[in-house]
Amino acid sequence: MTADSKLDSKLTPLAQKTRLAARSLALEPIARRNAALESIADALLEQSAAIVAANQADCAAAAEDGTSSALFARLKLDETKLKAAIVGVRDVIKLADPIGELQIHRELDAGLVMKRVSCPLGVLGVIFEARPDAVMQISSLAIKSGNGLILKCGREAVRSCQALVTAIHAGLTRAGFDPNLVQLLTTREETMELLKLDQYVDLIIPRGSNSFVQFVQNNTRIPVLGHADGICHLYIDEAADMTKAIPIAVDAKTHYPAACNTIETLLVHETIAPTALPQLADALIAKGVELRGDAKTCGILPNIKPATPEDWATEYGELILSVRVVSDLSAAIEHITRYGSRHTEAIVTENEKTAAQFLSEVDAAGVYQNCSTRFADGFRYGFGAEVGISTQKMPPRGPVGLEGLVTYKYQMVGTGQIAATYSGNDAKPFTHRDVSDLSE
Amino acid sequence: MTADSKLDSKLTPLAQKTRLAARSLALEPIARRNAALESIADALLEQSAAIVAANQADCAAAAEDGTSSALFARLKLDETKLKAAIVGVRDVIKLADPIGELQIHRELDAGLVMKRVSCPLGVLGVIFEARPDAVMQISSLAIKSGNGLILKCGREAVRSCQALVTAIHAGLTRAGFDPNLVQLLTTREETMELLKLDQYVDLIIPRGSNSFVQFVQNNTRIPVLGHADGICHLYIDEAADMTKAIPIAVDAKTHYPAACNTIETLLVHETIAPTALPQLADALIAKGVELRGDAKTCGILPNIKPATPEDWATEYGELILSVRVVSDLSAAIEHITRYGSRHTEAIVTENEKTAAQFLSEVDAAGVYQNCSTRFADGFRYGFGAEVGISTQKMPPRGPVGLEGLVTYKYQMVGTGQIAATYSGNDAKPFTHRDVSDLSE
Repeated sequence: MTADSKLDSKLTPLAQKTRLAARSLALEPIARRNAALESIADALLEQSAAIVAANQADCAAAAEDGTSSALFARLKLDETKLKAAIVGVRDVIKLADPIGELQIHRELDAGLVMKRVSCPLGVLGVIFEARPDAVMQISSLAIKSGNGLILKCGREAVRSCQALVTAIHAGLTRAGFDPNLVQLLTTREETMELLKLDQYVDLIIPRGSNSFVQFVQNNTRIPVLGHADGICHLYIDEAADMTKAIPIAVDAKTHYPAACNTIETLLVHETIAPTALPQLADALIAKGVELRGDAKTCGILPNIKPATPEDWATEYGELILSVRVVSDLSAAIEHITRYGSRHTEAIVTENEKTAAQFLSEVDAAGVYQNCSTRFADGFRYGFGAEVGISTQKMPPRGPVGLEGLVTYKYQMVGTGQIAATYSGNDAKPFTHRDVSDLSE
Repeated sequence: MTADSKLDSKLTPLAQKTRLAARSLALEPIARRNAALESIADALLEQSAAIVAANQADCAAAAEDGTSSALFARLKLDETKLKAAIVGVRDVIKLADPIGELQIHRELDAGLVMKRVSCPLGVLGVIFEARPDAVMQISSLAIKSGNGLILKCGREAVRSCQALVTAIHAGLTRAGFDPNLVQLLTTREETMELLKLDQYVDLIIPRGSNSFVQFVQNNTRIPVLGHADGICHLYIDEAADMTKAIPIAVDAKTHYPAACNTIETLLVHETIAPTALPQLADALIAKGVELRGDAKTCGILPNIKPATPEDWATEYGELILSVRVVSDLSAAIEHITRYGSRHTEAIVTENEKTAAQFLSEVDAAGVYQNCSTRFADGFRYGFGAEVGISTQKMPPRGPVGLEGLVTYKYQMVGTGQIAATYSGNDAKPFTHRDVSDLSE
């Protein structure tokens, strides 16, 4: 506890209230937390007209500012999108309770029993840009997992988010919960203050551009769940089935070019490059993809642009794909190790030994054989929700569901035991017997 | 991947070699990793004379420098201690394999199967002070868990650690492993370089003083496993059984005063304070403990020193205990929330409702009823080893065993599946069926 981190921020009183509210929420049984979500869904439905109107005002202001169509699409929250988001809140009710899970249940000695139990993190700080529907999704996940939430929305979405949080507060209050559980910040200055609240905020989830996520990572002592970049690769091995390789390459590049699980570089084994590259190029160019190749690739595909060294380290986020011919699996893994961001890496091969080596040796949150990198997603993994994708080495890693919003504590119940009994020359041995019924 | 983090350090070539060696180790089956440990244990035994002689030279130099007796005791590695440490290396062989554990096994659709499998972190950076036996312990845990290791030892222990690492290298080489798996750094300048190697080192484990751990936490982007302080509390509730409370208080304060799981403050319910405090004080003072009380405590124990506000925020690390009378459970929890370092907190009470509230509401890695805080330890928890104790909120938290040296990856094997099939208007649904035999 440094003097530094105890410095008061303008946001301290707000964060303390949220922390207090979260402490009570953490004690509520799952039925009560689900009742809060029901009540929030009802309030959102009741206040739909006001929410849509607030969003129309945001959209009108954005249109005046000459906002890009992509941002505009994310900002817009019409009745259809709002209703779908409310269904999303009710879907969270169906998820299993992430807290109170008994992970270890062990007798250390007669009458001295240890349990490791999952519990909420405390308070989450979520900073997002234009999409107002994120308010509903992240609020429901936070409440489900017993956490308080401090939201910071983008400038463009302030009216929409305020209307949404007003409805969430109404829902919480009606269900008998403290509305301080969910707070909304709206200014850039408050973002900086939020990042300093390491005494009160347990996890920051930034949702925005790569540079924004990197800024957050570099400017807080609070753990950050997220990833700054997603440079994913697809390696077409010499033993690839091209009827799989071509659709996978097209899907992995073009299904959603801006997504982090989209590939930026295609690696092709040199043995098959002369036949495989023209087929791959035809399919990709037909989908509007610009290819940039290394010297060997350009030797086979003379009409494409040459790749520069920067290309291998670039997340395009659009329909551009760099292509490199590699001499073997090791060269492919070398390339991925050097340039990959440990997000998701895929191989197409029918050789099981090669596949096994790729899946073992490649260091990434996701390592795939014979399927698209685009499957890297919490919903597709069956987590029911996704709170973020982490490219960090330590867990939680990859697509993170509700599991990422909880931690655990060790609860020990004794009958007067002291450590001195179990140490020294006539130390009593521990029994260390796992209690078999972990489901109690 | 920032330009920043790609800057070359003098240690880069060394770290790259360790990373490469670790990548091979990660592929070795448990029998081979255990064989490496056997060979290391044998080599340490064979080179015992050289190791003990090197340690004697370190001890002689330390004696000349007028080293404190506590440091001297930690530095000393005689034949008895060395033999015990070699037994420790062989004990690690008996631990379960932490890598390759199948954590999730799920069919997303027919022919598209996802596994979440535990895997090594990669390279560990361990910075420790005087104790040379840490070299053997941490090297064996690193190899068991498939990780490379860069060790940095304290100035006083350089000769001892070099002799130990020479033996470890001999053992690795003889078993057919790359000796670059374990590297030893010896200068302070190298510590600073090590902290910058976020491209090559996945976890830093600092072992040293609180201020040193805090320094490490503030000067690296690499995740740090450890804790800067351990301010633990014991709360004696009004429903306490004093025949338990007194030995627990004595054990929790005096069993090992310098340990992080030792209590620094005793909180006593005001209803029982007039009778309980004199008994507690007698027992503690008999063990040489200096008490410092708040006004109410001093009213009951007029001969003790008054506590200042700084006392509540101080980890004494010696036989001093601050004592405060609290009005009820909530006041005790308030005090712990404000001053505790989320390490280990205990209550003595026979009231199960009070205990349940304490165990739920207190935010700490360990929350105990009716036993000493001194049980917070990886060996006592039955983990077989302890790599550190974390007071961070995110897992791994509390005493951390081999589990803290591994992460996981998602391995997906398909038969040509693409994401487009599962999205849009006629999206194919996922099956999301957990494969029941998780032990395969």
